[in-house]
Amino acid sequence: MIRVGVIGYGYWGPNLARNFSECPDTVLTAVADPREGRLADARRRFPGVRTMTSADDIFGSPDIDAVAIVTPVATHAALALAALEAGKHVLVEKPLASSVADGERMVAEAARRGLTLMVDHTFVYTPAVRLIRKLVDEGELGDLYYYDSVRINLGMFQHDVNVLWDLAVHDLSIMDYVLGGRPNAVSATGMSHVPGKPVDVAYLTMFFEGTLLAHVHASWLAPVKVRRTLIGGSRRMIVFDDLESSEKVKVYDKGISVDPSPENVYQGLVGYRSGDMWAPQLPVADALQTEIAHFAECINQKGTPVTDGEAGLRVVRLLEAATASLDAHGLAVPVPGGLR
Amino acid sequence: MIRVGVIGYGYWGPNLARNFSECPDTVLTAVADPREGRLADARRRFPGVRTMTSADDIFGSPDIDAVAIVTPVATHAALALAALEAGKHVLVEKPLASSVADGERMVAEAARRGLTLMVDHTFVYTPAVRLIRKLVDEGELGDLYYYDSVRINLGMFQHDVNVLWDLAVHDLSIMDYVLGGRPNAVSATGMSHVPGKPVDVAYLTMFFEGTLLAHVHASWLAPVKVRRTLIGGSRRMIVFDDLESSEKVKVYDKGISVDPSPENVYQGLVGYRSGDMWAPQLPVADALQTEIAHFAECINQKGTPVTDGEAGLRVVRLLEAATASLDAHGLAVPVPGGLR
Amino acid sequence: MIRVGVIGYGYWGPNLARNFSECPDTVLTAVADPREGRLADARRRFPGVRTMTSADDIFGSPDIDAVAIVTPVATHAALALAALEAGKHVLVEKPLASSVADGERMVAEAARRGLTLMVDHTFVYTPAVRLIRKLVDEGELGDLYYYDSVRINLGMFQHDVNVLWDLAVHDLSIMDYVLGGRPNAVSATGMSHVPGKPVDVAYLTMFFEGTLLAHVHASWLAPVKVRRTLIGGSRRMIVFDDLESSEKVKVYDKGISVDPSPENVYQGLVGYRSGDMWAPQLPVADALQTEIAHFAECINQKGTPVTDGEAGLRVVRLLEAATASLDAHGLAVPVPGGLR
Amino acid sequence: MIRVGVIGYGYWGPNLARNFSECPDTVLTAVADPREGRLADARRRFPGVRTMTSADDIFGSPDIDAVAIVTPVATHAALALAALEAGKHVLVEKPLASSVADGERMVAEAARRGLTLMVDHTFVYTPAVRLIRKLVDEGELGDLYYYDSVRINLGMFQHDVNVLWDLAVHDLSIMDYVLGGRPNAVSATGMSHVPGKPVDVAYLTMFFEGTLLAHVHASWLAPVKVRRTLIGGSRRMIVFDDLESSEKVKVYDKGISVDPSPENVYQGLVGYRSGDMWAPQLPVADALQTEIAHFAECINQKGTPVTDGEAGLRVVRLLEAATASLDAHGLAVPVPGGLR
Repeated sequence: MIRVGVIGYGYWGPNLARNFSECPDTVLTAVADPREGRLADARRRFPGVRTMTSADDIFGSPDIDAVAIVTPVATHAALALAALEAGKHVLVEKPLASSVADGERMVAEAARRGLTLMVDHTFVYTPAVRLIRKLVDEGELGDLYYYDSVRINLGMFQHDVNVLWDLAVHDLSIMDYVLGGRPNAVSATGMSHVPGKPVDVAYLTMFFEGTLLAHVHASWLAPVKVRRTLIGGSRRMIVFDDLESSEKVKVYDKGISVDPSPENVYQGLVGYRSGDMWAPQLPVADALQTEIAHFAECINQKGTPVTDGEAGLRVVRLLEAATASLDAHGLAVPVPGGLR
Repeated sequence: MIRVGVIGYGYWGPNLARNFSECPDTVLTAVADPREGRLADARRRFPGVRTMTSADDIFGSPDIDAVAIVTPVATHAALALAALEAGKHVLVEKPLASSVADGERMVAEAARRGLTLMVDHTFVYTPAVRLIRKLVDEGELGDLYYYDSVRINLGMFQHDVNVLWDLAVHDLSIMDYVLGGRPNAVSATGMSHVPGKPVDVAYLTMFFEGTLLAHVHASWLAPVKVRRTLIGGSRRMIVFDDLESSEKVKVYDKGISVDPSPENVYQGLVGYRSGDMWAPQLPVADALQTEIAHFAECINQKGTPVTDGEAGLRVVRLLEAATASLDAHGLAVPVPGGLR
Repeated sequence: MIRVGVIGYGYWGPNLARNFSECPDTVLTAVADPREGRLADARRRFPGVRTMTSADDIFGSPDIDAVAIVTPVATHAALALAALEAGKHVLVEKPLASSVADGERMVAEAARRGLTLMVDHTFVYTPAVRLIRKLVDEGELGDLYYYDSVRINLGMFQHDVNVLWDLAVHDLSIMDYVLGGRPNAVSATGMSHVPGKPVDVAYLTMFFEGTLLAHVHASWLAPVKVRRTLIGGSRRMIVFDDLESSEKVKVYDKGISVDPSPENVYQGLVGYRSGDMWAPQLPVADALQTEIAHFAECINQKGTPVTDGEAGLRVVRLLEAATASLDAHGLAVPVPGGLR
Repeated sequence: MIRVGVIGYGYWGPNLARNFSECPDTVLTAVADPREGRLADARRRFPGVRTMTSADDIFGSPDIDAVAIVTPVATHAALALAALEAGKHVLVEKPLASSVADGERMVAEAARRGLTLMVDHTFVYTPAVRLIRKLVDEGELGDLYYYDSVRINLGMFQHDVNVLWDLAVHDLSIMDYVLGGRPNAVSATGMSHVPGKPVDVAYLTMFFEGTLLAHVHASWLAPVKVRRTLIGGSRRMIVFDDLESSEKVKVYDKGISVDPSPENVYQGLVGYRSGDMWAPQLPVADALQTEIAHFAECINQKGTPVTDGEAGLRVVRLLEAATASLDAHGLAVPVPGGLR
């Protein structure tokens, strides 16, 4: 039984706490948050849990095996490093860190100590994304043409990171899991509409080797909530709409057919294929539950998480490059490591 | 009665021909197209119309007052200049020309001769876009934050221009009419997925003075057809979905409220306002019919078309800059004239 | 070449006229309508067509082989009988007649003279309905449980028939084509909200042998237009939404599974199956064009139309029974002949 | 502080228990259910709650002031009567009882003892339904023409009541609250598709004085979930879609206009008005929380609940009449009391 301490009990922390309390392989032992009111909430919800205003008390507790860090991004690295130094396994809310340098330190420290470092890329554990990866891996889409995502809504403004770190991070984590290749450069544009606050509307293009192109539109300023991803391939195309209650993933037997004979390429003949649409039944599974069980299993069996520190770091590399491109009004910025 | 010759009888030409034949102030006199089969179609549809395989025959006909040029973009300038030199008023399908230099020649020639030069920015004549302009002009949206448009479908590949010239041109013409400001730089990214063919998926960001940001996603490679534009302002936000049969324009009483007192800006307090949604009834009016009537009226009364040559030229300037940015992987390219 | 006269040039007549003029096996010879203005429209649209204010002139024209009757329902029988007596083949707009007695006379007269009598049940010729019949015929749905249709909009009020004769008739014609069985009784309820006018909102239940149940909601008083049909079977279920531009027909691999062992039926165990959804690509075909070609073929080859007079009569029997039930506030009224 | 015992801890009981535990005026004191496993769940969820396998233990507990009965419909009356006789206030899950006779006994007993008897018509406490009532009361819709509701999904079969008692009951409770009039007769049709089980697909028409007509389509056998209600009036029409995450209530400025002059009524001129659509912002409020607070307030202040026993009884009268009509294949069955 893995004994877990949750650090940070704001918006997302209670969800992790609940899942740790329900997972048969973990027990929720402690919750840390500087706000006494939040701790009172935690005690009401989880009678018997220990609460503390300082994360240090968690690091100093020998009866805690693992911690979940659910705090503002800027604090991830310091907390995770302290936890690793105290010999705890670590699950970090996305994004892993607020800089590549920080992320590299975290990954190195976990490796040195042989501890599990995992990032909470929740979407990777959803039935929809797992199905999409399966379709891509099995070649159902053919050659990949593009990944295009719109992830917009009204709110919630973050204070310390721009909207790409808050919303596009989901797409980067999905792409890291689903697409085979890795982007080698990014171009981002955006704008802040509130003086002194981070960019709230942003567009991010990612270039891959070959003709695969990816793009994410992220916004805190949209009148409607949209969570729609298109993935186009030479054989089939996918529409993934996460707000659909059923039929989240639709597979279209559509595409273009290019006559490869030289005279026709010259003449520019492009044909269109239009066929059936198919919405596969998705298994009913809670992503967070799957993720927590995977975290526990990796700790118990010294396995490598699907969303390990390296995966988190690949995403941070993209976000850091994207932010640099944002500042340069769309100038393409190379990405050292790319995705997997 | 204005006697009109239509040059080019492919996909769009028949629509213009029909509207010229139905407009009480114009008469469809001649149709020119090099393809004899197309001319046979025209004669069947419009008994009595004169048909000819060369546009020159139209330019040489003294009983023709005006021409509509509905041919591939690359041919617009030469045909329009020849028509103007022959003393004809000219309506050109969008985009006005395939280069700024060409467009400038066309505008100058029309001015020199005192002839009407109009570009077929059809959307400007739709009830939906006219309502949106009215809402913007009357300050209903407050300060403009962004214009965001998705205009995607499967097909139809053009041979001579990239997808921005084919699809994003609609948004540029709408923005030219609706927004007060003008973009001073653009950043575009995209990809061609068919060897030897133009870019088929593209993303275009436009920077304005202040914090207004515009973006268009254009694609010939999407499994679903989308025509959705979001316009966000400080007071209200609009969703314009051209594929909705009713309720094309929805006005959301939503936005953010920023406490302007210095301590709160410092603390980063951003509030959200969420209110009613309102879908105004749109008048039933055919855009093309409105446009043709306006063309006739401008000729008769020596007026300036809403979508005159200058409007067409402003759009071409953006497209030319966007294409340069595409080639430079998103590098921001300044736009000399911007929109109106 | 079959020479056709169209009687009635109001809302629907021009569509039939156009299709007769475009069909390679028919020629539009004459149009009759008492309104001179409508005839002027017809001449403008179809140069060379003969026009006349009296249908009698059509019946008396030896160069006319067939007529299409596109007039108010109450006039169908007299016009069709006159046409048959004049030796013309007849296509009648739906519903075939305003009473079973009239319909029977029409069917008998056509049979006596060996002439083609066809009713314009347009939906039967759509790719969507043809696909649905194929799925039903091949047993893809299993045992049929229900047919449920909502066919509502704002307007258009008819003066001489209630809303079932105007809107539900479409569903009755689809059911006649798609379902194997025949209803043996109907129960209808409804209301007129305008003094002196026919019932404008109505609900019609149809009972079949076994457990198949059908229902139609028809209304001229709805704020939104809906055209949605659910067809449920023991193996699969269909949603047919005629307003969808693509994916009109969706097939759901859903249903219930009943454990047939006696103890479980006793315990009442009903399970649910939930599987994939599949939206087959429909061929692009114009229903009216298909129908007109079929009419011509039946005349030329002395074939029996899919929607022959008998089919029209079966639908009228249901409508007549439904109207009797309406008057009796839902009392079940037996139907002599049922559907096919 | 009102001390509450919850009887029945199946699907809905936990929701009521949670709300009693969170409401500041009530405390969750005990839970009774014959299934020991359910009681273990209750103890885990609500540490400190007393659990018991027999409802009698609740009735015999002097420290319990009120009970919530969340058990199969057939047991409502006996449990409620026992609770009232023990001096407890009672909240009963909908429908109030399985027969009018039972419901009348419950209402009489509560009245005799001066205890609060309330039925859990949850929809009445939702912001959407409250807004609709306000619009109706203020005459915004004009004269009411119809109430039409579709409430269908796959599952869940009940063993002891047909689908009207399970699903249509929601609409009857909404109608009882929203509409001014009362139905004086009902006509229902339906079918059971599983041998030995209750009717699973049913259609219910309700006749009111004047021209108001109501209809509900209820089904456990639909491939898609639909919760859509249309309410039409002479001035405006409403679409209430409970599955919409935002814009649940849309108000259409649409209708018909009838020229009242005698000659025009004679001519049958009906015009259509089409205007704006408006989706009012709904307050964010949890219906069950509102309901529980109202229950507590009625007990404390000896008030009459909005959904008192009489309201529950009016709904049961309709359900009983509907079931009789179902058995008679749609024969109209008079309703003694109607709605309020």
